[in-house]
Amino acid sequence: MFLSNKNFNDNEPIYIQIENYIKGIIDKNLLAQNSKLPATREMAKLLGVSRNSVITAYENLEAEGVLYTIKGKGTFISSRNIDSSVKWHVSWKDYINDYAVKASELDIVKSEIPWSKDLISFKSISPEGELFNIEEIKRAFLNTISKENHKILNYGYAKGYKPLMEYILEYTKNKGIDVTNKDIIVTNGFTEGLDILLTSCIKKGDKIICENPTHNTAIKMMRVHGVDIVPVKVNEDGIDIVELEEELKKGGVKFGYLIPSYHNPTGIVISAEKRYCVYETFKKYNVPIIEDGFNEELMHNSSHISPIAALDKDANAVIYISSFSKILFPGVRIGWIIADKGLINTFESVKRCKNIHTSFLDQGILYEYLCSGTFKKDIKKIRRIYREKYNFALRCVKEYIKPSFIWGEGSLHIYIGIENINSRELLAKCYEKGVIFMPGDVFSVDSSCDNTLRLGLSRLSLDEIEKGIKVIGKCVEELKNGDT
Amino acid sequence: MFLSNKNFNDNEPIYIQIENYIKGIIDKNLLAQNSKLPATREMAKLLGVSRNSVITAYENLEAEGVLYTIKGKGTFISSRNIDSSVKWHVSWKDYINDYAVKASELDIVKSEIPWSKDLISFKSISPEGELFNIEEIKRAFLNTISKENHKILNYGYAKGYKPLMEYILEYTKNKGIDVTNKDIIVTNGFTEGLDILLTSCIKKGDKIICENPTHNTAIKMMRVHGVDIVPVKVNEDGIDIVELEEELKKGGVKFGYLIPSYHNPTGIVISAEKRYCVYETFKKYNVPIIEDGFNEELMHNSSHISPIAALDKDANAVIYISSFSKILFPGVRIGWIIADKGLINTFESVKRCKNIHTSFLDQGILYEYLCSGTFKKDIKKIRRIYREKYNFALRCVKEYIKPSFIWGEGSLHIYIGIENINSRELLAKCYEKGVIFMPGDVFSVDSSCDNTLRLGLSRLSLDEIEKGIKVIGKCVEELKNGDT
Repeated sequence: MFLSNKNFNDNEPIYIQIENYIKGIIDKNLLAQNSKLPATREMAKLLGVSRNSVITAYENLEAEGVLYTIKGKGTFISSRNIDSSVKWHVSWKDYINDYAVKASELDIVKSEIPWSKDLISFKSISPEGELFNIEEIKRAFLNTISKENHKILNYGYAKGYKPLMEYILEYTKNKGIDVTNKDIIVTNGFTEGLDILLTSCIKKGDKIICENPTHNTAIKMMRVHGVDIVPVKVNEDGIDIVELEEELKKGGVKFGYLIPSYHNPTGIVISAEKRYCVYETFKKYNVPIIEDGFNEELMHNSSHISPIAALDKDANAVIYISSFSKILFPGVRIGWIIADKGLINTFESVKRCKNIHTSFLDQGILYEYLCSGTFKKDIKKIRRIYREKYNFALRCVKEYIKPSFIWGEGSLHIYIGIENINSRELLAKCYEKGVIFMPGDVFSVDSSCDNTLRLGLSRLSLDEIEKGIKVIGKCVEELKNGDT
Repeated sequence: MFLSNKNFNDNEPIYIQIENYIKGIIDKNLLAQNSKLPATREMAKLLGVSRNSVITAYENLEAEGVLYTIKGKGTFISSRNIDSSVKWHVSWKDYINDYAVKASELDIVKSEIPWSKDLISFKSISPEGELFNIEEIKRAFLNTISKENHKILNYGYAKGYKPLMEYILEYTKNKGIDVTNKDIIVTNGFTEGLDILLTSCIKKGDKIICENPTHNTAIKMMRVHGVDIVPVKVNEDGIDIVELEEELKKGGVKFGYLIPSYHNPTGIVISAEKRYCVYETFKKYNVPIIEDGFNEELMHNSSHISPIAALDKDANAVIYISSFSKILFPGVRIGWIIADKGLINTFESVKRCKNIHTSFLDQGILYEYLCSGTFKKDIKKIRRIYREKYNFALRCVKEYIKPSFIWGEGSLHIYIGIENINSRELLAKCYEKGVIFMPGDVFSVDSSCDNTLRLGLSRLSLDEIEKGIKVIGKCVEELKNGDT
């Protein structure tokens, strides 16, 4: 930074010129506060002047408070405010595009009531951290480090860590999915899987058929990508086949997005026979299916049912996106897409444009954990505990809320509808009494879910569940009686 | 999956109807191969038939090879091929949008010569894994687990892990950057930082001024986002200020993208005085700067120089994107953006649309490692080793290649130009002799870098460096002499 070809004139003493030169550099903020100056000998050499001139300059600047010296360490720039001239202020609002505007507007983390310690919050469907097998995760970490050493810490491949990819493919095959002409890419959770798909395929205005209600994050992501969401109503047994066919018949639909197992928010598991019917209906109109398997691993009542992707044998029309995030440590952000080989090849390049690859360390840890054998034991325990919570909550809901309907058959949440009650109004009332939940409108693109709500159970104790549901029941009663 | 309301008729024996029903389910692939059927008692209850009918049906199906029984375990579906009727084939090529097409076309991993064991490859500028402090990383992992327990493994916040954010902000302040009105978001490496910025701000056809040559991944990412790249030539001391001002004067430029420290591919470090000049020039035309600090931490000859972002005191016009990926374990994919508070608030929502957040486990490990105190020691050692490699390679290049120019002053690579030599032709010749490198055209949007090349040094031994450079020198000579 110090110019070696700096020219000094003959009108002023050199040391003063050096002082002004250093001051100029500091004023322009080219040198950080408390950063070290070159030693006098070095500086003299850099500037092509005598060392004595530099010593004098440093001493004077120190006297002025511009520099300070620490014995045996050197000379440093003082901390002080530097006057800047005209301030440069960029109006960033003008720089933001539609995507970012929508991403902010639809960001419910910013608009909904935040979690706080004194609330009983039924908002979350994150897994209960106490169920993570910490000792096994430690072992998995040490195993991957001892096997792979520094390789697991260096750049890897966009498609993923090979042992993990192979494990997941095998795991998926055991669910009845034919992976012969399919391939896998590891993503930063389910969310990035869907993002990569939308980024690669969507043109503004493309139509996607969605269950109504459906996963709120998927709605948000489709909207930021400019998707025109076509809602199809959900009945007690899942998507309405008649309405689905009507929408497909209209034409121009690019994808169907479905959550057949423990649907979010309703908790419905579509029956195997109905899955076949849904698949055949999409097939009839040649509209590929995005299958969201995020809750797949939690299936406890319905373990005989294969994913819709299993019906896609010898075909290439189902894009299966999943993760273990609802059962195992979601903080490590690992999910995957299994789809047509050529499509995955495209996704690989797109992934490389987004973040090169998913953390290899995390992939290594997950792989070792999955291989450890405790995985299957852990998952059984996790399912059992959530099932207990669900059954308990179900009893409480029936006793204290008496809703018009309760859908679904398990998982981390219960979805209910209450006739003549607007769930936003109910939420406002419950919030006053220290209880919050997800109002149904969050999961819908129209007003059809305004009298429904989702109760996330995973992170609450049985005590809290009972207490919270009692409060909701009481508020429902008050609203029905017109109490304010 | 088994219908409890299944109707059986009176025309056929019930057990035959059960057989056909089960076959139908298997044919539709609703049940995976080797999956277990309900026990006869359970099945009888499910279907509302006598247990004897089910037993007969199971026995017959077993005889046909449709099912098999394992004593004490139950009855399972056999492995066999199921005939599917009409195959559903989606033509995925028709589904891919411009973004994905460009991402594939510009994906040099797919087009360039791949690394293989028998090659001396100067392509990579990944850090040398042997330099990672594995013991300290283990300690960092155990520390973060013991401090945060399951919290570090569960969902976190889009902006990042707070202790890490605070550490990096403090670290950045020490470089002279005023962070008062700025904020930070942790990303999956530098790449995702740039992706979030482009996703949030770019409208198709927006102009960004880039140094020419520049970082090839940045070129690719800008192109997939539809950016119109405006190249400004690079001289020995960095971007050409006259040409820069000419381009800015034309108007309509949205951003400048600059790599002031160990520029990729040239290795140039822009002097502090010139940084000031560059900043003022962009300021004059109110065009904000994206500063790429990816190589910042490697600075060994020029440690007194602050980032351009340090000149942006009391202003909000520089978006600083960086990571430790060129010195510390890039496999964990952690980078960050420091920019205007409001802008980071927007990026937070965009990040949530992409992958919710960056792995909290990785952030925890990085934080604990940075705090350990060995970081500063490690970084000194890393710099020293890379400096030795660089200096050694520099001598080899001068001796064996005698290029027209060598730019830059260090880092993980050397950039050279060789008059009248097309570096693609040179690469083809070197490849025959087992040596590869990055031809200059990869880093440019025009043909101005066709006679240049980048030699990545980080993962090669001194022996390999000398051997490889000798080969390149020989090939240059042959090309000059017209030997084929």
